[in-house]
Amino acid sequence: MLRPKFDAAGLVTCVATDAGNGDVLMVAHMNDEALRKTIETGDAWYYSRSRKALWRKGESSGHVQRVVEMRMDCDQDAIWIRVEQQGGAACHTGRRSCFYRAITRGDDGAAKVSFVDAGQVFDPGQVYRQGS
Amino acid sequence: MLRPKFDAAGLVTCVATDAGNGDVLMVAHMNDEALRKTIETGDAWYYSRSRKALWRKGESSGHVQRVVEMRMDCDQDAIWIRVEQQGGAACHTGRRSCFYRAITRGDDGAAKVSFVDAGQVFDPGQVYRQGS
Repeated sequence: MLRPKFDAAGLVTCVATDAGNGDVLMVAHMNDEALRKTIETGDAWYYSRSRKALWRKGESSGHVQRVVEMRMDCDQDAIWIRVEQQGGAACHTGRRSCFYRAITRGDDGAAKVSFVDAGQVFDPGQVYRQGS
Repeated sequence: MLRPKFDAAGLVTCVATDAGNGDVLMVAHMNDEALRKTIETGDAWYYSRSRKALWRKGESSGHVQRVVEMRMDCDQDAIWIRVEQQGGAACHTGRRSCFYRAITRGDDGAAKVSFVDAGQVFDPGQVYRQGS
């Protein structure tokens, strides 16, 4: 039985990974409607906490996520979807994945951040110019 | 610069994937201390919302997660760690991954949940019997 445990804001966490190579593309949230629409349509739908709105991934950019597999975790408060990312980029910054910065421990013991796989697949200025 | 954007509860979301095959093992949370300890020690530390406590993964079970790579997302509110999972299982139910249930669309259009890769690597009754 699917019994998602939504948090106080009515959301579950959703992790989208690249069905091809397993990389984590993004972490976002789904409300009940986003979850149902994702199951029904096979495209990833999310709930934007900043815009307070249901959101079909790619509705502005065309960079739709086709869901290859969908999983629920033990606590039913997190979803994992393996997706085929249209347009090759999931991140609003134009990068393939939102996780384009590595955290390492510097020689002085402090955390160090460096760019990895941070090339832009698209120019956000171009893609989002038209609005949605 | 590492500038994590902690939520109202002081947490960021952390996704742990298997460094070997890319599968998502678990989704959990880190507070500032868990994040710092993870960077310092190379083992995954989390913050348990239910127990309201800092928690080194594997401290009870021995199923420590060695961090191979750590990434931060565009908004700096989510962390992705690629880990070597000691003991072969990340889930407290004894399964390799917490995501051992698939969600599909049944013939009647309703969501259907089925077990996948749900074999138990360990018996939680045995492993957690001793307490921490």
